[in-house]
This record gives sequence, C-alpha cells and structure tokens, in this order.
Amino acid sequence: MTIRTVDLRSDTITLPTDEMRAAMAKAVVGDDVYGEDPTVNQLEQEAAALVGKEAALFVPSGTMGNQIAVLTHTGRGDEVILDSEAHIYYYEVGGPAMLAGVQLQPVNGLLSDKGPELLKAALRSEDIHFPHTSLVCLENTFNRGGGTILPPNIMSEIYAIAKQRGLQVHVDGARIFNAAVSLGIDVREFTQYCDSVMFCLSKGLAAPVGSLLAGSKDFITRARKYRKALGGGMRQAGILAAAGLVALKSIDRLAEDHANAKRLAAGLAELPGLHIDPARVQTNIVIVEVKGRLTAAELVNQLAERGVKCSTFGPNLIRLVTHKDVAAEDIEYALAAAKEILC
Amino acid sequence: MTIRTVDLRSDTITLPTDEMRAAMAKAVVGDDVYGEDPTVNQLEQEAAALVGKEAALFVPSGTMGNQIAVLTHTGRGDEVILDSEAHIYYYEVGGPAMLAGVQLQPVNGLLSDKGPELLKAALRSEDIHFPHTSLVCLENTFNRGGGTILPPNIMSEIYAIAKQRGLQVHVDGARIFNAAVSLGIDVREFTQYCDSVMFCLSKGLAAPVGSLLAGSKDFITRARKYRKALGGGMRQAGILAAAGLVALKSIDRLAEDHANAKRLAAGLAELPGLHIDPARVQTNIVIVEVKGRLTAAELVNQLAERGVKCSTFGPNLIRLVTHKDVAAEDIEYALAAAKEILC
Amino acid sequence: MTIRTVDLRSDTITLPTDEMRAAMAKAVVGDDVYGEDPTVNQLEQEAAALVGKEAALFVPSGTMGNQIAVLTHTGRGDEVILDSEAHIYYYEVGGPAMLAGVQLQPVNGLLSDKGPELLKAALRSEDIHFPHTSLVCLENTFNRGGGTILPPNIMSEIYAIAKQRGLQVHVDGARIFNAAVSLGIDVREFTQYCDSVMFCLSKGLAAPVGSLLAGSKDFITRARKYRKALGGGMRQAGILAAAGLVALKSIDRLAEDHANAKRLAAGLAELPGLHIDPARVQTNIVIVEVKGRLTAAELVNQLAERGVKCSTFGPNLIRLVTHKDVAAEDIEYALAAAKEILC
Amino acid sequence: MTIRTVDLRSDTITLPTDEMRAAMAKAVVGDDVYGEDPTVNQLEQEAAALVGKEAALFVPSGTMGNQIAVLTHTGRGDEVILDSEAHIYYYEVGGPAMLAGVQLQPVNGLLSDKGPELLKAALRSEDIHFPHTSLVCLENTFNRGGGTILPPNIMSEIYAIAKQRGLQVHVDGARIFNAAVSLGIDVREFTQYCDSVMFCLSKGLAAPVGSLLAGSKDFITRARKYRKALGGGMRQAGILAAAGLVALKSIDRLAEDHANAKRLAAGLAELPGLHIDPARVQTNIVIVEVKGRLTAAELVNQLAERGVKCSTFGPNLIRLVTHKDVAAEDIEYALAAAKEILC
Repeated sequence: MTIRTVDLRSDTITLPTDEMRAAMAKAVVGDDVYGEDPTVNQLEQEAAALVGKEAALFVPSGTMGNQIAVLTHTGRGDEVILDSEAHIYYYEVGGPAMLAGVQLQPVNGLLSDKGPELLKAALRSEDIHFPHTSLVCLENTFNRGGGTILPPNIMSEIYAIAKQRGLQVHVDGARIFNAAVSLGIDVREFTQYCDSVMFCLSKGLAAPVGSLLAGSKDFITRARKYRKALGGGMRQAGILAAAGLVALKSIDRLAEDHANAKRLAAGLAELPGLHIDPARVQTNIVIVEVKGRLTAAELVNQLAERGVKCSTFGPNLIRLVTHKDVAAEDIEYALAAAKEILC
Repeated sequence: MTIRTVDLRSDTITLPTDEMRAAMAKAVVGDDVYGEDPTVNQLEQEAAALVGKEAALFVPSGTMGNQIAVLTHTGRGDEVILDSEAHIYYYEVGGPAMLAGVQLQPVNGLLSDKGPELLKAALRSEDIHFPHTSLVCLENTFNRGGGTILPPNIMSEIYAIAKQRGLQVHVDGARIFNAAVSLGIDVREFTQYCDSVMFCLSKGLAAPVGSLLAGSKDFITRARKYRKALGGGMRQAGILAAAGLVALKSIDRLAEDHANAKRLAAGLAELPGLHIDPARVQTNIVIVEVKGRLTAAELVNQLAERGVKCSTFGPNLIRLVTHKDVAAEDIEYALAAAKEILC
Repeated sequence: MTIRTVDLRSDTITLPTDEMRAAMAKAVVGDDVYGEDPTVNQLEQEAAALVGKEAALFVPSGTMGNQIAVLTHTGRGDEVILDSEAHIYYYEVGGPAMLAGVQLQPVNGLLSDKGPELLKAALRSEDIHFPHTSLVCLENTFNRGGGTILPPNIMSEIYAIAKQRGLQVHVDGARIFNAAVSLGIDVREFTQYCDSVMFCLSKGLAAPVGSLLAGSKDFITRARKYRKALGGGMRQAGILAAAGLVALKSIDRLAEDHANAKRLAAGLAELPGLHIDPARVQTNIVIVEVKGRLTAAELVNQLAERGVKCSTFGPNLIRLVTHKDVAAEDIEYALAAAKEILC
Repeated sequence: MTIRTVDLRSDTITLPTDEMRAAMAKAVVGDDVYGEDPTVNQLEQEAAALVGKEAALFVPSGTMGNQIAVLTHTGRGDEVILDSEAHIYYYEVGGPAMLAGVQLQPVNGLLSDKGPELLKAALRSEDIHFPHTSLVCLENTFNRGGGTILPPNIMSEIYAIAKQRGLQVHVDGARIFNAAVSLGIDVREFTQYCDSVMFCLSKGLAAPVGSLLAGSKDFITRARKYRKALGGGMRQAGILAAAGLVALKSIDRLAEDHANAKRLAAGLAELPGLHIDPARVQTNIVIVEVKGRLTAAELVNQLAERGVKCSTFGPNLIRLVTHKDVAAEDIEYALAAAKEILC
C-alpha cells in the first residue's frame, strides 16, 4: 500500500479551486470600508438572497460572524441560551463573555428533538437576580453533535417559543448548506426560522477565507459597526469575495462529501473495536467510538503513520471529516489503513 | 388557630438583635476608604482568623464578595468552573460575564461526591480555541442543592486537582457556618481547601448588612481595589462592622435553625402529597416536592393565607428556610397550617 | 500653642451625629432586596422628592451611584463625555471601561462657562469609526475644580444641547447640596437639568454610609438591577437609611463649612508663598498654590506635624476641605499653624 | 480641462498591483489556524525581521492589530496613555473599552517633542482610586497630526520613561514605513523603542488586505489567541499574505507619495484662502486650513465636482492623502482644479 495523505481532520483545510484563483486574480475591487468594493457588495447581495434575508455582511471568519451576531442581538449583561456542545460555547475562546459581556446558559440537548421543551425549561422569569435572556443560538449542522441536522420543524418550534418570549434566534450555520443538501431542501427552509444566520464560504465550499452574516437591514447596519470594532473591516476584500462567489456555485458538490462520509462510516463500522451510530452520520462528519485495545489517541497516531489524519474527540472518540480535497479513493485508502491497524 | 406570621422565605430577612443595635449605636468609626475605621479593621482581622486566612475584606453583600473573588482570581476572557446550580451562575445577574468578562462552565453535579471526577472531565487542554481556565467556584452550603454540605474530604480532593492544574479555588460560603455547625467541626476544616472564601454576616447570623471575603494578603490587597471599582468602598462602615462582630459570636445558634428544619421536614414528610428527601435536610433549608392535587404555587399561596411565607422553587418544589426569627412554636404553627391545607 | 487635630483632608471623614446613632439604633428595618425595608423606602422617596425626580435608589457609595448611572444610561461600546478632571474619570478606578465597556471622552473645561461650546465641539457625527455617544456626565460641585459650582444657567445650556442630540445627562452631585446652599437656591434649580443625579449622605451631611441615585421610575428600575449585579443590594439597609434621613435635615449646616472655607482661604492668602484664587472658593474646598521655598508636600508634612491634616493636589498645590467636624476655632488653629511655618 | 478622477481621500483605496494579483493566484496555501499556511508563515517571519522583532502575526486590519496589542499588553481595568488625537482613541469605535475593558487617558501633545514630559505628568501614582497604567500607545506616522513623524530620539525618551515605570509601549505604525522612508532610515530605528508595532500592508504599500503585529515570541503567542477570539483567525490566508510579500518589496515607492504631497502642499499654499504649515507636510498627508469665503465642506464639494476627492477634517480643515494610485500629473490636475475654484 503506497502511503498517501488523506487529511480528514477538518473541512477547513480545503484549498481554493483554480476557478477561484482565476476569479481572485481578476476581481474588481474597491475600499470596502467605504462600501466601494463591487465584488464584496455583490457577494453580500447574493448571500442575503440565498438565505432569504434582507442583507448580509462579509466577515473574515465564522467565529467573527458568530461573535458579531451575539454583540448585535444582545445588551451588556444579557444571557444567551445555546447547546452545551455548541461551537460558540466550546470553541470561541470565551468571546461572548469577553467581548459582549454576556453569560451563556448551556443547555444539554438543545440541538435535538427535545430542544423546544428544553428551551422552555431554560427560560428564566423576570427577577432582579436574573440576567435578561435575549438570544438563542442554534447550530446547523451541529459540529460536536457529529454534523447532525436540526430539521426545519424543530427549528420552527424553537423559533415560535423564542418569538413568544421576545428572544432573537441566531443560527451558527457554518455548515448549513450541508444540512440543506443532505435533506435536499432549500436552505431557506431552515433560515426562515431565525433572525440571523452565519455561514462559511471556506469549509466544504472551499473558498480560502470568509463567512457571511445575514439578517435584517437594521441588524446588518449595526453588525457592520461591530465588525469595524472587532477589526473585521477589510479594504480590498473583493479579492476574497471573488472566491466566495465561486464557492456559492459549488453547494451541490457537498453531496459528494456526504456520500464519502457514509461510505467511510459503513466501512469503519465493520472493523473490530469501532462503533458508529449510523443515524448520526447525516452530513460530512463521522464520529467513531473506539472501544477495543487502542485508545482514541493511539488510533489517531497509527492512522497518521499511514498518512491518514484525523482528530481525537474525547478519550474514546475520533472525528473524521470529509471534504472537497478527499476523493472516493482516499476513503478506500483510509479504510484500508484502519483495517490494517485494527484487524 | 390564631394567624401568626412565620416567614420561611429566606434567612436573609433576619432582624438585627438588640445587642447588635447597641453595638452599632456606640461603634467607634473612621473613614474605611483611608483604612481608618477601627471597627472594620477589627472585624476583618477576626474574620480572617476565624476562617484561617491571612486577611479579609468587608463588603456590602455576598454577591459583591463573590464577584470580587471572580475579578481578582481571573484575567479577562478566562473560564470559571462551577456547579450548574451555583448561586454565582444562577442568581448573580450575569455578573461574571458582565463585570469580569469571564465565561462560566456550569458542571451539573460538581457540588457532590462526584465533584472531583466531574472537575477532571471539565478541565480543558491548552488550545487556541479554548479560554484559559483559572478558577473553580464551590458553594458551601449549597443553596439550590437544599442547604447541603460539601464535606471537607470532597473539598480536599477538588482542591488537590485544582492545584495540580494551576487553578484557584473560591468558596461561596454565604452559609459556611451552617455547614461547620451541622458537622460539629471547625470552619477551617473546610476553608483550608480553598484560596478564598466569602461568608455572610447577615442570613443566619442576623447582622443587618455585610459579608467578608478572606484570602491571602496579596489577594485581599487586589480585592480591595476591585471593591473600590464596584463602589463597595464605604466610609464609616464600622457601624455595620459593629453588628458583624456581634454576629460572629452567635455562630453556635445556627444549631437551632437546623433542629427546626429537621422538625419541619419530618412533619411535612408525614403529610399527603408531599415528599422530602431527609438526607438532603442537612442545615436550615427544606426542599419539598409537591406531588398531590396542589401545584407548588397553590400550596405557597394557601400557606401565605395562613401567614406562612415560603417560596416556590420550580413547578413542583417549594423551599422553606429556618432562621433566627423562626422559633420552634412557629414551626409547629407552620406544620398545622400545612396539615389544614393538605389533609 | 497646644497641638490639636484638625483634619482637612476630606469631608468624607465626618462622624455620625448622636441623633444619627439614635436613629440607627431604633430603625425599623426589613429585607431591602425584597423591597421590604420601610426606612430605605422612606429615604428613597424623600430623596427623590428633594431633587425633583420620580424615584431614587440607595447605594453604598457615590462611586457605585455614578457607575450604575453610566451602566444604565449607556449601551456596551458607547462613549461618555465628561470633564478631563471629573471624579468619574479620575478617581473611579477605570470603572466605566471595565464595568460598562464604555469609552470616556474627557473634555478640558467642560465644567465651566465654556462647557456648552466645548460640548458641541466634542460631539461626534455618525460614522462607522466612531462610538455612539449616549451620555454627558457633569459634576456639581466640581471636586478637582476646587469645589466650584456649575450654575443652573450653564447646566441648562448643556442639557439643551444634550437633548437636541439625544444624549442623557447624569450629574455626579456628591456635593450638590453645597452648591445649592452656597447659591441659596433650591437644589432642583440644578437637578431640573439632568436625567439622573447622584448625591452623597456622607461627606458634609455626615451620615456614615450611603448615597442616592435619582431619576425617572424606569431608570431607577433598571438601575436597581445593575445595583444587584454590582453587589450593592444590601439586606437590612434601613440601619444606614435611618442615619441618611437625619442627614437630609442637616443640609443648611453646610453654610458653616462654606464660611469656614472662606475664612481659611482669606487667612492663607495673606501668608507669604501661598496663592489662592478667591473666586474659586465657592463651597467647602480650598485649593492653595504653594509658590515659596516649600513644596506642596513639605508644607503638608509640616502642617501634619502641628496636627493639621490636608492633602497635596499636584506638585505645587494643596487641598483643604472644611466639614462638620471642623469648627471655626479649628480654622484659626490651622491658620496659626500655617503662619508659624511660613512666616 | 478634461475631468479625471483623483482620489485623495485616503491611501487605503490603493488597488493591488498586477504582481500582487499574480502572486495571489499562485500562492501556496494551507490552514493558518493550524499554522499550516506556508505563505502566511513566510510573511510573518519576513515582517518580524523587517521591524526587528522576534515574531509577527498577520491580521485582517490595522484596527485589529491595535486592538489585539491593547488586549495582550493590558489587564482588565487598566489604563492606557495615548495622544488625544490617536487613531486608537478616535477611530476605533471605542474598542479598547468595549473589548479590553481598559480606560484611555488621552494626552494632548503626546506625539510631539513634548511627549516625554507630558507622559511623565500623565503617569499616576499607586492609589486605590486609580486604575493601573500598563501601556503607552504611540502612532507613527501620526494620522490626525497630518502624517507627521515622531522621530526616534523622542521615541527613545518615551520608551525609557515607560520602562522605568514598568509600562509597555505599542506603536500604531499603520504608516511607519512612510516615516522611515521620509527620514531615510531603517524602520528599526523606530521600532527598537517599542514592545510591539502594528503596520499595514494596505495603504501606501497597496496590498488588498492585511496588517502585521510584531513583538516578542511570548507576546505573539498570546496575541494569536486574542486574534482567534476576535475572529481574526483566517483559513487559507496565504492568498492575502502573497500580496503582502509583494507589498513589502515596494516600501521605497512611498518616496513618490511624499514628493507628490510636497508638490501638492506647495501648490495649494499659493492659492488664496488656503493655509498650510509646510513643516507638517512630512509624508503623504496634507492638511489644509480653509480661511477664505468657502467652508471646508464647500471646497470639498467643489473639488469633487471636478473629480478631485478629499475629506473635511473639521469645520475649517481638509485632508488630502497621496498614494500609489495618484500620479504626479494627478497632482497637477488637482492643483488646477483648486485654482479654478479659488482664483
């Protein structure tokens, strides 16, 4: 078996396509801080339309998009409800507290069928001891859940509860197109049930840099100022936006990643010492429980020796992510490598 | 049955004793912002000695004591681990995020025998996505746990883990003397396992206003500046400290509140439609599950009509707190009132 | 000359009167966090009426009153305009940035006749680079200005500009009764030109602890929650409020402090090496320029050796403050001591 | 006179060169959050060497570079000293207070020969009322000063004072290469007198997006985490870094902008109703006082009608900035347009 590199650590590593490179090289640009970059403007308009919102804002990362959403939807000292495994809580360096001064209320299971019921239970009454709750953050697909999809009907229920209680709903939709492609529905089936949504042009869509935050015009006007404060106001950002416009045309390609993930999951599930819940392999992420003689870290290391890169995800779990730069034959290679280790 | 008022909502309602009033009237005072109030200085010294710390700081409330501890132990953007029902998380208006810019990591069950194990699991590795974890906050007795005691051996284990990982440990000891009196041990058996502790002079000890934050000299020097920033630097605070010095002599009296709580719990447990876990009635708080035809809110209302005040504590729970201004005969009256309603 | 102690460092050192001590000893109190302390409630009502506002809030210090005002009037990231020598900017430990996340725009001379013009020049246009300006903070009397009075006509002009631009106006009126007594006018002549005002019961009014923040009902409702977050919610605070109610009856006494300050200024002005601008001696603060062979620090030290305590206020300035516990003969003694040193 | 567009509003509008576009199109990239983008790594190394620091960090904007520097050098609640016209104070949306919780102390004249003396006067003693001062921010060239240079000898004096008092020094060097080129010295003549420096690849150097923050290795390690928190961690950022590497080779070209600015200033100075201080035209910014029958806004509008874009800079001032996309003949055209209006 010839060693090849199969990088399944994350879909964030995808490289820009030749079409993107060509688009970047010839992009018409201007100073976006003055609102004069035509390519950024076009991308923001297309993005807003795509997710069914009035306006959108180009930001250098998904984390910034989420942080701006939190800043814009909340006042200082508010509380934000999210899943106890949400990216915003888990992977964003404590930003909501540090930057926005808001407390997170992590709810275990929010991003599941029980979400609506759990949200109701989490809502606080008015009391001088309690922070004011102003925002619910969802995540779709749910990264630490294993790339799982929160279906529109559940989002709809959560949104209805939120509106009844005067809360805003933001969706961390870093991979929301994976959800739409997987269910074969328009992404607006999801985004109709939120006040703002962030999605990434990098990851599966393969643009080098950038995400979009979409919402109402007023929301985006205020978000734009927070972007400036965080230092996310870029000058001739049309270079990046040009790649983003190409990326938006490649949404359907995500189906390949999902097929690869399913094939990978099926193959791994047959190996001794590994357990996979097939119901959770809904998009491009595969979470594998390692139950045999190897620890998760040992398996990751032995795969790495064979060129297959993936991540531990807790003491007994590993995570593998399919993406544009992993082909079907790479999946077969990874399976062969795993088989060699485990059988 | 003649109606009498029995206020079991909280021990925060205790009125100052005549001895306290006399002490306040004749207190020798000075400007404490200049460090010139002899009565405050005496209280801070006695308090520090009592809990076995180098120094102490008089603050206007337990909440301020806790917030100052969080500010002093952490840097901006850090993460703090505490129980998911901790007062600091639940009842302090989102202060840790708003004032200190720190993210809370609420851990369900931290304040239990499983605390040490859960703490280990909650600790994050070093990673650019993760906030730095700098502090563990314990609470003893545990208010929302029902006044339960975290015993010294568990505190010791938690403290050892924290020290191994470079974390500080703060104890919200608003009612820590209840814990010490209940177990019949010196409070230092607990406070040896923390870097700082806050305890209240109000509540069961009946002083009108004030709490103390104790720790190392350096910690208290820095805490004093945060107290000034929060507006907790008071002028002739010796008036309040004089009552506090009296309060410190009344610690043993808390045993009466515990006896009353046990009697109350035993009596209520016999009534139809109520359930009490006797193992959780460890100090002066009684949590009652209401299972019969009445909701918790209905029972609270019907008790109130008979002069017995207590609080709902969720849809099916009520909370009753014994304290200095509730006598043994008040307990019998409350039980009679409950019997009249439920039987 | 027999040595006596004349403490002119600050009016914060005033001791409570016997009447206050008696009032505290017999105060009817309750749990103010539940809104059940009748003495606190009475004080808040009297205070609101006194300054012509709908409601008031008792707080443990002037600093907390100011910080709550800043928190309540602003949103995260706003800008606040104040004098470059304002107490809030100079002496409050950076609280506006740390607690409220607001930027201060210090304007040199705001608290002078040129204030209205300078305010206009300081106002920013709407621009994505600029913070939103939401608040102007005045200070009356002006501590670092030397206890000077910002007269109602200037406050009126500033207030009109602020309202035209949608800004709120808060007055740090720690010593606002000194201003009213000095001009012989009702304090509401000043406070009609602001949205909120904080004044102290300690300082010249001699209560041991406490200040009041007054404003509209809605403002005070929101301020009450911020007070809780900062840890300023006290339990049986009626003890302190009782002294405060006595303090409110002693406002006219401030005239004695002003007379003493004028006598002190006149006497010092005759001594060699000292210069005083008599126009700035408007209330109970005397700022003295030290021009001779002694530095300010040396003069302060030599006065201290003779029992006269005062403060340096820069390399060539000293500050002396008259108050309840300084009698006319103490002023004569202080003058004699200064004469002995300088002549 | 044929109308042509001469955009003198800012050097931020410069368009990327063909060489940059080619470099971006073929850049070798990777995931920079994993530290795997070779082009970013190369840029960070070259940038660090260029300014004589151990390490550097690529950030999406100068504002983010400055904010990260403030976050990394300070603790929550600290005070930062800077010029009262500094970009960080004036144009960064209140970020230091909102994001870092630090108070700014604006000092009028800090960025002048009197800077060292003014800094000494601004330093606070240790006092419980005062925030801790931890950082001095300089700016070179000084944007609102008119692109003026703070010469190395003054920086050296300021740095010495700062070090004596335990303060860090950060330089907002958005245009620091303009300073170096204008004086004909190595940029390290400036940057040796600071702990961190931010400089921009956009502006005169014409890269589309990006700035660098340089300092010690430890500083940059901590800064990298703050960059992540602010959302400045980008994925295949090597696209932008490739243009940045080209930009670093074009530093000498800034001399043309300076020559154009001098020519522009000389020409405008001859026109009636305009006044220019030639001593302040040191780099690529020209500040013009409008004294005649036209207001600054009117002059800006009339120039705009002739295709010459510039900005008002206060009621009587206009600002013109030369840059890569303004040629010598554009300057002549602008002068002709101004002459037509004013003569």
